[in-house]
Amino acid sequence: MPPTHTTILTGDRPTGPLHLGHFVGSLRNRVAYQHDYRQFIMLADAQALTDNMDDPAKVHRNVIEVALDYLAVGVDPARSTVFIQSQLPELAELTFYYLNLVTVARLERNPTVKEEIRLRGFERDIPAGFLCYPASQAADITAFKATLVPVGEDQIPMIEQTNEIVRRFNRIAGRDVLVEATALVPPVGRLPGIDGKAKMSKSLGNTINLGASPDEIRAAVKKIYTDPLHLRVEDPGHLEGNVAFTYLDAFDPDQAGLAELKAHYVRGGVADSLVKRRLEACLQESLAPIRERRQQLAQDRGHILQVLRQGTERAREAAARTLDEVKAVLGLRYF
Amino acid sequence: MPPTHTTILTGDRPTGPLHLGHFVGSLRNRVAYQHDYRQFIMLADAQALTDNMDDPAKVHRNVIEVALDYLAVGVDPARSTVFIQSQLPELAELTFYYLNLVTVARLERNPTVKEEIRLRGFERDIPAGFLCYPASQAADITAFKATLVPVGEDQIPMIEQTNEIVRRFNRIAGRDVLVEATALVPPVGRLPGIDGKAKMSKSLGNTINLGASPDEIRAAVKKIYTDPLHLRVEDPGHLEGNVAFTYLDAFDPDQAGLAELKAHYVRGGVADSLVKRRLEACLQESLAPIRERRQQLAQDRGHILQVLRQGTERAREAAARTLDEVKAVLGLRYF
Repeated sequence: MPPTHTTILTGDRPTGPLHLGHFVGSLRNRVAYQHDYRQFIMLADAQALTDNMDDPAKVHRNVIEVALDYLAVGVDPARSTVFIQSQLPELAELTFYYLNLVTVARLERNPTVKEEIRLRGFERDIPAGFLCYPASQAADITAFKATLVPVGEDQIPMIEQTNEIVRRFNRIAGRDVLVEATALVPPVGRLPGIDGKAKMSKSLGNTINLGASPDEIRAAVKKIYTDPLHLRVEDPGHLEGNVAFTYLDAFDPDQAGLAELKAHYVRGGVADSLVKRRLEACLQESLAPIRERRQQLAQDRGHILQVLRQGTERAREAAARTLDEVKAVLGLRYF
Repeated sequence: MPPTHTTILTGDRPTGPLHLGHFVGSLRNRVAYQHDYRQFIMLADAQALTDNMDDPAKVHRNVIEVALDYLAVGVDPARSTVFIQSQLPELAELTFYYLNLVTVARLERNPTVKEEIRLRGFERDIPAGFLCYPASQAADITAFKATLVPVGEDQIPMIEQTNEIVRRFNRIAGRDVLVEATALVPPVGRLPGIDGKAKMSKSLGNTINLGASPDEIRAAVKKIYTDPLHLRVEDPGHLEGNVAFTYLDAFDPDQAGLAELKAHYVRGGVADSLVKRRLEACLQESLAPIRERRQQLAQDRGHILQVLRQGTERAREAAARTLDEVKAVLGLRYF
């Protein structure tokens, strides 16, 4: 890992294969960050269980799938520490103690938690682990003394929550044991689903997976949401909310050509089918090497496990150092 | 430890030295149980922190004090496994997963938690760790597959909560991985404070500590609550709520003589000072050997730490076996 004072913690809940939304929103950035920063990438299986206790096998299976996605897009295990959350008991221990540093009322006011509770339809039957996950996230972030945490805009309150815990703990310690983190909101916003919905999500069935086959890519592009008012080729088209163009913005290597196409589309005279052909070509080209590397890597499960074992060991050492400091402050060293 | 299918988990929050209430309510029983049952005795330092984050040094100090109390009353480390909760990361891990098996609403309905929240005046500012402690207690109990948990009547809902978690987990597993526990409510009720209040408690200043000096015992007995209506020696006295007699019930080795004294007291003609002299003699006699053994043991802090280290290692092995089974069910074994 590069020597640096900036440490990033990032990761994913392994509940399904990663898709283009992940690629644009985070994976691409990680591949870049790993050259300049110390980067920990967490497969958050324990966190995924907070609302998947009835299907733990799904989470287990997807740990390997997501790890494949990471390596396929170019995450380099020599530069990034890829690890499995549940294999670090230190994170559960830190969570346990941080829960004493946050009130129930504060957790219930957390806008991110509120929204996620609404999305999942939990109402009053929230699993306690779900309400408590900001403390768990604080454990994940502080264990590595991460200073940068790439998140979507909606996750900023989580980072604030972490920093509140950091400050409360440091007040108890009487010195700066833990480190505050800064939310790093990526410049490129979230990629919408192929149906035009704001969020690309497996459960909505509006994704294109990173490992999608050429046929799957073709079928998805065919269905992609464009401009419902653009009925005839000669009609002027609209770019706002036009997912085909949003995707082209993210994937077209010829951005000058794309600008011309957009102007033409807005004037009228460009068929949606032409836009889609261009998009399909871009996606096929972008995803082919990822898919191939992914297929290759998937042949050697032993290698993937080896990468995860090594990353997990390295992450554990870092987390154990922090836990040791935390337990010293709390008088929990006896022997 | 004796070979048995009955396993007891018990313990104390190390927030102060133990007193006569602990002795009568639990310590005496543990000394008896250890001959017949597999017994784990937990110094619940991590649990004590849930509402003592601002004074962790107090908790640390009292771990050793309470361990001294245990050994002084006759807990035998060869028969009972005495361990420190915070030194078993397995318990934090189990807690972490059990939090997914209980809803926030259910925790808020827990009568024991409700009452403790009221007692501590937390209102809406309950630390999350405090609300969640039934899950932590479930971790403590199930980690050792304890089948008997000695508790006061008011703690029965906690055991029910544990068993709910056990049943939910076993349903996920599809077999009985965890074991349900039974609350063991001791026949002798709670010893009142010397001021007549229902609960003997350090914060109320109405205790007699196990390590009390002869002078402290004398002073406490002098202040002890008897019968406020018993103004003249010749007046009939009342036994109900008369703490001097409650203590004699618990400590007088001559129960026949005590019965006579009671009859006489009720008829009239027995001075409170006589009752108190008898009580003081009993307490001095009961506590002298405990105090002496305690003083002796306190000379050799290394020995106490050695006992705790060995107990903690033994406890950890048991907890690790359970955690391993739990993680296997949750698909959290990878390597």
